[in-house]
Formats: sequence, C-alpha cells, structure tokens
Amino acid sequence: MKAEMMPKTEPFRVRPAAATVAKVTEELAKRFGNRLVTSQAVREQHANTLTWQKNEPPDAVVFAESSEDCVEIVRLCAAHRMPVIPFGTGTSLEGHVNAPYGGVSVDLSRMNKVLAVHALDLDCVVEPGVTREDLNTHLRNDGLFFPIDPGANASLGGMTATRASGTNAVRYGTMKDNVLSLKAVLPDGTILTTSTRAKKSSSGYDLTRLFVGSEGTLGLITEITLRLQGIPEAIAAGVCPFPSVEAACDATILTVQSGIPVARIELLDALSVKAVNLHAKLELPETPVLFLEFHGSDSGVKEQSERFGEIAEDLGGGPFAWATKPEDRNRLWKARHNIYWAGFALKPGATTFATDVCVPISRLAECVEATQRDIAELGLLATIVGHVGDGNFHTAPLFDVENRDEMKRVETFVERLVERALAMGGTCTGEHGVGQGKMKYLEREHGAAAVELMATLKRSIDPLNIMNPGKMVLV
Amino acid sequence: MKAEMMPKTEPFRVRPAAATVAKVTEELAKRFGNRLVTSQAVREQHANTLTWQKNEPPDAVVFAESSEDCVEIVRLCAAHRMPVIPFGTGTSLEGHVNAPYGGVSVDLSRMNKVLAVHALDLDCVVEPGVTREDLNTHLRNDGLFFPIDPGANASLGGMTATRASGTNAVRYGTMKDNVLSLKAVLPDGTILTTSTRAKKSSSGYDLTRLFVGSEGTLGLITEITLRLQGIPEAIAAGVCPFPSVEAACDATILTVQSGIPVARIELLDALSVKAVNLHAKLELPETPVLFLEFHGSDSGVKEQSERFGEIAEDLGGGPFAWATKPEDRNRLWKARHNIYWAGFALKPGATTFATDVCVPISRLAECVEATQRDIAELGLLATIVGHVGDGNFHTAPLFDVENRDEMKRVETFVERLVERALAMGGTCTGEHGVGQGKMKYLEREHGAAAVELMATLKRSIDPLNIMNPGKMVLV
Repeated sequence: MKAEMMPKTEPFRVRPAAATVAKVTEELAKRFGNRLVTSQAVREQHANTLTWQKNEPPDAVVFAESSEDCVEIVRLCAAHRMPVIPFGTGTSLEGHVNAPYGGVSVDLSRMNKVLAVHALDLDCVVEPGVTREDLNTHLRNDGLFFPIDPGANASLGGMTATRASGTNAVRYGTMKDNVLSLKAVLPDGTILTTSTRAKKSSSGYDLTRLFVGSEGTLGLITEITLRLQGIPEAIAAGVCPFPSVEAACDATILTVQSGIPVARIELLDALSVKAVNLHAKLELPETPVLFLEFHGSDSGVKEQSERFGEIAEDLGGGPFAWATKPEDRNRLWKARHNIYWAGFALKPGATTFATDVCVPISRLAECVEATQRDIAELGLLATIVGHVGDGNFHTAPLFDVENRDEMKRVETFVERLVERALAMGGTCTGEHGVGQGKMKYLEREHGAAAVELMATLKRSIDPLNIMNPGKMVLV
Repeated sequence: MKAEMMPKTEPFRVRPAAATVAKVTEELAKRFGNRLVTSQAVREQHANTLTWQKNEPPDAVVFAESSEDCVEIVRLCAAHRMPVIPFGTGTSLEGHVNAPYGGVSVDLSRMNKVLAVHALDLDCVVEPGVTREDLNTHLRNDGLFFPIDPGANASLGGMTATRASGTNAVRYGTMKDNVLSLKAVLPDGTILTTSTRAKKSSSGYDLTRLFVGSEGTLGLITEITLRLQGIPEAIAAGVCPFPSVEAACDATILTVQSGIPVARIELLDALSVKAVNLHAKLELPETPVLFLEFHGSDSGVKEQSERFGEIAEDLGGGPFAWATKPEDRNRLWKARHNIYWAGFALKPGATTFATDVCVPISRLAECVEATQRDIAELGLLATIVGHVGDGNFHTAPLFDVENRDEMKRVETFVERLVERALAMGGTCTGEHGVGQGKMKYLEREHGAAAVELMATLKRSIDPLNIMNPGKMVLV
C-alpha cells in the first residue's frame, strides 16, 4: 500500500470491544456456518498448549479451506480491526498461537493438499496445513523426500512461519533454505506471490525470506513451494558414546570441518540418555552420546562413517554402535524425537518446556558445560539435547509449577542461559521462534537499530496491527 | 525510524539543485580532503561501464575508509537529500552504479580488510571492498575457501548487494545462503547489525536476507560475515561433449536428481566453445559441452565422476576429458570465466552484454533451444553459457551499436528471452540483479502485489529515497 494510504492510527494494543467481537463472529458464522467455532474447548485448543506460558484463547476459530476463505477472513477482520492468528497443528513452543488481544484463530489444518510435485525440478507446492510426515508419505513413491524435521509432526505453514529446522539442518539447511516461494494473504486482503519456481533469483527484495520466520505477523501463508531431495541410495545411523560433552562437541567440529556431509549429528547428555533409556526401553551407555546419520551412496556412507569413527576414537569416544536395519534406525530417531516426553520419566508429574539457544560451534562445548554447571548449582533437573552440527541445543527443565521457589530458579536458569548464548555471539532462538516467550531478548540480541527496523517493517506492512499482534516485535 | 517521524515528502526523482551539489561537495572536500574526487574521468569510471547502457556519472566520488566515514557521508547526504550510490569494483552488469539523479558515489574499495577468520566456526568477517580473490588468497593457509564465484573478481559488498552466485552455486548456494550477518549504514545514518554469528536463528525478521540483494537501495553495507568451506581433499575437473543442448541438459538434471554433489556444472554451446578455443587457444570439440568440477575425498570424487560419466554415456555424451593437474584445471576455468572477452574473437569491434535468465531445470533444454532458434531467426550472433545445475544461463549477443537495425533485433531478442523465461516459471535475473536494466520486468515476474510490497519496504526504510534511487523498484 502507498505511504499516504496508511491509516494514521495508534498501534493496536487493546482487545476489540465485545460488540465488535459479536459482529465479526456473526458475519463469520453467516459465511462459514459450522466452520466457525466459538466453544471454549476449541478456543483453548487453539491457544498455547505446549509450554508453561498461559493459554490465551482467541474469540473464535474459523476452519479455512482455501486461499479465498483466508482473503475473506482477513478482509472482514481488517474492516473491524480484529486480530488474526494463524494456526497449523499447535506444536509451537513460544506462544505463537495465543491471542493476547483476542481475535480470530484461522485454523489452516484443512488446507492440506499437496498441489503439485515437480520431480525433475526437485520441488513441490503445498497448502500450509500439510504436515511434514504427510508430505513425506506423499513423496515416497517418487523417490523424493523433504528433509526438514523439527521432531513434531508440524504443519509446513507453521514450519515456514517459524523458520523451523531440526535434526537434518546440518546438511539440508533450515526452512529459510528450503522454501523457494510462497503465497500469503497480506493484512489488507491482497494475495502476494513472493517468487517464481526458479532455483535462484536476484530479482528484487527477498520477499520469500521476509515471510519465512515472520510468525504470522505480516500475513497468512496460504501456499508454499518447497525444495525436495532424492531419497539417498544408502542411509546409515548409529550411536557413539563420548567421555565428555567437550569430546562429543570436538568430534562434531572436526566432522563438520573435514567436510564429512553428515546428515544428522545430535548430542544427548548423560541425563537425556537416562531418560531415553527409561522411556524407549533402550540400553545406551549413560554418558554423553552422539546420534548420527549419514546419507549418500553405499561406498560414500561407508567412507563417511569410517572417517567419523576415526575422529571419535581420537577423542576417546566410541565404539560406534550401528543401527543397520531401518526399523532399528527408526527406533533410535523416534527415541530422540520423544525426548520431550521421555523427560517425564525422570520426574513424573513435572512440567517442562524446551529452551532453544544456538551459538557459534567453537563455543558450544563451553556453553553446554556451563549450562550443566548452572543446572547443578540451581538444584534443577534438566536434560540437554542438541543439533550440535549447527551449535543449537535445547534444555528441558523439569519442575513443579506449584513450587514457587523452583519456578524462580527455572526463570533464573533461562535468563542465564540466554545471556550466556548472547555473550558468546549466539542467538536466543535457533529454531523455535520468538513468539511471546523471546520478545524480551530481541533487543539484547540484535541491538536497538535492528529491532526498530523490524518494527518499521511490521508497521509498514500491517499498519492496523491485526496480524498476530503482541508477538515477535512490539509496535 | 517511527512511522510518525517519516517525512511526508514527494518521492525523490529530480537531480539536486546545483547549489546543493556544490554545498555537499564542499562539505565532503572539507572533511575528506583528496579522498573526495570530482574529476570527470573518475566520475565516469564510477558509473556504468560494462554494458551498452549509458554511463550516468555521479556528481562526486568519495573514497570511504571506515564505517564512520560511511555514516558521515550518509548523514550529510540525507541532510541535503543527495543520492548515495555504493561502489565496489564496478563489475555490475545492470547499471547499479549509475547516478541517474546525480549524487555521491561512495567508493568502498579501500575498506578491504579481512577483519576476522573463525576457522573452527567456518566463518569470517570482511569489509565490503575485499574482493573474492583477495579473500581466497587470505584464507588459503587456513585450508579454507569462500565458494561463491561470479567470474569477475567482484567485491564481496557488491556480491552481497546483488545476491551474486556463479559457477559453484549448484553445490554451495548463492550469497543468500552464504552471508551469516552484515552491518549496514541505514539512510538516516544509524548502524544496523542484522544478526549474530550463530549458524542458524529464528530470531525476528530475516534482516540479513532483506539486505542481501537490496542493491544499495536500503543502506550502505559496511561489514559482512560469510560462511566458509574447508578446501576439499580432492578436486577433479573435466570437459564432456554432448551431441545436443538437450542431451547436456538431461545429463545435468539426472546428475542433480541422483544426488551427485557436483560442485560446478557449466554448459557452453557450440559457438561459445568456438570462442573459447579462439581466445584461450584450447582445442575443444565444437559441440555443446559441460565443464564440470567435483569436490570431496579422493574416492568420493572418483565415484562422483564415474557416475557422471555413466549418465553422460547413456545420453550419447563423452568421452569425458580430465584436467588432472591444477594448472590445467585453472586454465579450463579461466577460459570459462573469460567467455565475455572471448566473444569478441568472433566479431572484433563488436559490443556485447550478458543476459541472465533462470528457469526451473525441467524447462532448461527447451528454453536454451528456443533461444538458439531465436538467435538464428533474428540473424544475430550470440554465445550461450549456463550454470545449468541451477537452470540459469547467459547469452552474449555481439552487435554493432551503430547498426540501428541490429540494435533493434537485439532488443527484440532480449524481450523475447525474458518473456520466454517468465512464461516457463523462471526469473528475469538469476544472479546479476535488477539495477536499471531489469526494472521493467519486475511486475511481470512478481505481480503487482509483490512490487507494491517492495516499494512499501523501500519507502518505509528510505523515506527520502536517497539510497541508490532509480534502481530496482520505483517509489
């Protein structure tokens, strides 16, 4: 929109009046029938559910089935200055789907069609509600796969919106690297197409990357073109124990530096291994371990794993236990992905959530070890797992929400963790996003000029501040 | 800057008054002494020199030596609403360094320090005037290299600003994928830092990618943090002839699809081979050829090249001629990079320029062959070379600028070429950028909503329109 057309209004911070909510809900019900839901249970399901942050339900939930639905919803909400909160599978970890000012949650899970697979071009076009597991099932017969794997069976719209990554990022990058183009409904109801299917382009500002990681604050993503990979001829996975976190991190650095194209390299600290053993009935040695996966030709995978084995041995690690059968490999990764749930085996009835810092890999061992010392000092119980090839790791403190003292120590722990990562030249979030939970760290990480620029972008694209207000950056 | 602080002024489109130019020049001379140059020769050197587009010199050239210099220059220019045009090595191909409204060219070539190399993290921090060849010389002793190679010995600031790529992009990506963070002086003189050195982050809007490819229209890039690679244990390069462009393209598609991590895969059409033979005194078969390079371990490179050889043979290509010695390999790639100059061997005294479309790889053979037919139909002489692993190719028509009829045919050729690429789902520029030359295609490629959004971004970040005005997107 042109600058002179921008409404000169105060930033939106207050909940719309009850009359406005009633009016918008009525209009939506008229148009969408029983796809408009206002029951408390459904509204609460569509707010934050996975962390200790409070649940802030929207005023209403609409189940969108097409881009056109999204346009209508956004236009109506814009006309009444009603917040619009996109919703995929609800696996977000930082309160992205909360509705602190009320508004309409747009559930995109029914927009779940794979619209096209271009096998020769190694790309596909999907609606935002397609989950990564559904996409991979769809692609299997073409010998293709989509590599980004954040653990949860998240929707690809949500993964795009939060710039997700996960275990395969060390080799295949993050959503930033794997979205070729997208369509979005802008806050005024216009449909934007960011790019073509060309594999690269120098044509104008990178609107694709502006929307990847924008967390629903700039528009509703309604279509995504994703890069795909051929399923490798050979996959080998295994577990390698190390005498210390430092040795495991050093092995990771050497592996990456040697150009070994490892597909996954995941650290579990001794406590995480204990949890995984309890939960998934494995019998891994309870010391720091690396879970690894190699992709390539038969001989390539053999060479990669042998070279890794040598590196591990030099650092006092090993022996490397192979999971050669696909079912054993799947069992391993399932155990890794279920670490969130496995934690509860250590402290039944506890609450938990995942932290998410990322530091330059040279500082990783130091950062993880200082974090372990901090956990001990504060008398907490917290597992540590990391996508260590990228310098990214998560801790999951286990605590009792009724225990005020413990809660305070958890808060101190998180503050110190983020401070430590920032002091080491890292980021407050490697892959979960800012949402509500990380807003307070943004300026410390990026500086005032960057945060002000982010606010300028938000104000210029969404002058009414209807798109997921109260998230990422305050305007 | 806050929305309410944005000056409510008409877009800047006219050349500053002579008195303003005199005033700013005087102030700059006072501050920068003989680093402020206004001679016609130097001003013309700092405008477009590499294409048929006209040379539009700035009013003055300042040689900046630090970020602080850049801040002072931008502040002074902002105060007088004087255009600021960043300049690196002047190898841009689309008129990016022209000064259609006059203004101050900021020559960044003296900001040529490598500020840090973090070998463990595989990254480095450079000033914008460091050229890619200088960086690689600097890195050699650490066993590291920076892979992006656009051919010209461009500055890394310019490469960042145009989202450059080149021959290695099929394996290592473009500048979009290889800039971790950057610093820029914003149009109001504020210094922005876009990100940390963490290898990945989900922290806020992707300001790094907003500036990569922004062509100097949003700010002056003064520092860049780049990802590096370890120098591979083994490198193998060679040339493989094919019976047709289609066969060469099909071999490329199969190579990429099979997951062979080819580092370079470059198509030269028969006419390009002829030019290269004449210019570089090679004796290649004058049919379509692929120049290839493989990076990896000794056995990995051997396996990759054998697998490629099988693919080529199946498609009637080969034999694959190896350049095993580094000097032979360098001679090959030098010949490839000098294709621009080699063209003149075919038509001495001619003028030339490089086109730059990129299409989904499935359409590449069809696109190149239709382009060849068009060249023949229009009675033109034009070589074709392509970064075919990405679907990107260049043609270089050779023409006489005095020959009006030929010029008209060249214009028709370029129009048709871009239309064809866009109709195939491609882009008007794979790697050269928009500058002045491609502005007219932006809306056809992206649609009105995207171009309007780009203009919104430009207006909100640079409300006075002082940063490289008249480029990329009109505001």
